[in-house]
Amino acid sequence: MDTSSISHHISRQYNQELEDVRNRVLAMGGLVEQQIKDAVQALISSDLELAEQVITRDIQVNALEVGIDEECTQILARRQPAGSDLRLLVAVIKTITDLERIGDEAEKVARMAIHLTQLERPRNQYIEIQSLGGRVRQIAREALDTFARMDTEAAARVAQTDQQIDLEYEGILRQMMTHMMEDPRTIQRNMDIIWAARALERIGDHSRNICEYVIYLVKGKDVRHTSLAQIGEVAKRS
Amino acid sequence: MDTSSISHHISRQYNQELEDVRNRVLAMGGLVEQQIKDAVQALISSDLELAEQVITRDIQVNALEVGIDEECTQILARRQPAGSDLRLLVAVIKTITDLERIGDEAEKVARMAIHLTQLERPRNQYIEIQSLGGRVRQIAREALDTFARMDTEAAARVAQTDQQIDLEYEGILRQMMTHMMEDPRTIQRNMDIIWAARALERIGDHSRNICEYVIYLVKGKDVRHTSLAQIGEVAKRS
Repeated sequence: MDTSSISHHISRQYNQELEDVRNRVLAMGGLVEQQIKDAVQALISSDLELAEQVITRDIQVNALEVGIDEECTQILARRQPAGSDLRLLVAVIKTITDLERIGDEAEKVARMAIHLTQLERPRNQYIEIQSLGGRVRQIAREALDTFARMDTEAAARVAQTDQQIDLEYEGILRQMMTHMMEDPRTIQRNMDIIWAARALERIGDHSRNICEYVIYLVKGKDVRHTSLAQIGEVAKRS
Repeated sequence: MDTSSISHHISRQYNQELEDVRNRVLAMGGLVEQQIKDAVQALISSDLELAEQVITRDIQVNALEVGIDEECTQILARRQPAGSDLRLLVAVIKTITDLERIGDEAEKVARMAIHLTQLERPRNQYIEIQSLGGRVRQIAREALDTFARMDTEAAARVAQTDQQIDLEYEGILRQMMTHMMEDPRTIQRNMDIIWAARALERIGDHSRNICEYVIYLVKGKDVRHTSLAQIGEVAKRS
């Protein structure tokens, strides 16, 4: 083998490693999305067994985070990447932290589901959690899609939808507090619903973070702590 | 200049860069600690002006995060570090995310402080927030101390104290819910106190994360998602 074919070989291996990291992030994202879905389902259908599964499966989410983190650090040490490869690895290290926290929030929803099975079901069958949960699953999936496709314009759009989640959450909060004031016997149950809604709202924040890393990764520009209008501007720039 | 003196010069500059990053993290930590202190003070003394200051100063915390992050990425690209230098940079990238989130939680406490000035003060002068706030400030300061001194045994000890914060928070939660059930007119105020306590409890979690990064940094071993006993074990290993 001559030198150029060796270096070609090394660079193919290196690209394979980066591709592998990306795929593992997407697999972790798929697992986390399933966790959100199951946790919400467990809550609205009072399914104790499903809730327990979510709690047990969080260990897998944690293990994926530690494993991917380790892989990134090894690639950093061995390949000494620069430019967009370096940004990819930094973005992955941050993204998996948010995915892991999304997993934690899904676990909290599952714990509230278990708690709520011990209390009387509300007449509306937790309709507010169904609605918020659906929206939150969507933002998490879309955030991961923008990561998979490195689509910054979509990332800016998805980041914006987090505002709607915040509004819906605030609506639930007001509604639950009204219920509590009207009938203090529902305080326990309504507090549990508030905690579940809060956990879902946090998943929206983490999804927004992931969108911001995608923009950083592709554009090399940090858009955290800037306004949504600015995020949209940076995302469009070529 | 001969080659060895050039390389000596470069390595001195490089060490200076790493030292500079560490100092900036500690400065950011100092600012964040002040934010916790002022937010809690604003709440317990109903000091609107101080609360507004905390909210405004959060912009500085965010700017520090973005700046340090940028510096770490540049050093990674330029110096291509390995071993403990690489671990330092990865640990810093993670630590500043947690410091920034601690800043966000302090801001939430400040917002609750503003909200609470519009409501009647409780007879106990928010004694529970005073106590929890003091404990949380301490864990945040101690976590940063372990980072400054790279002291893994202290890091394991400090990580353990987060359990006491969780217990204290749960006690406050139970107490507030009892108050709400006894007198539904206090629901609004007690919910605000719950949100402030929750934000403080989250600061404990972030401080624990920082301790875990210190252990990773020094020992090269990831202790996240392991038990406190295991963390203590790893910390002691030489």
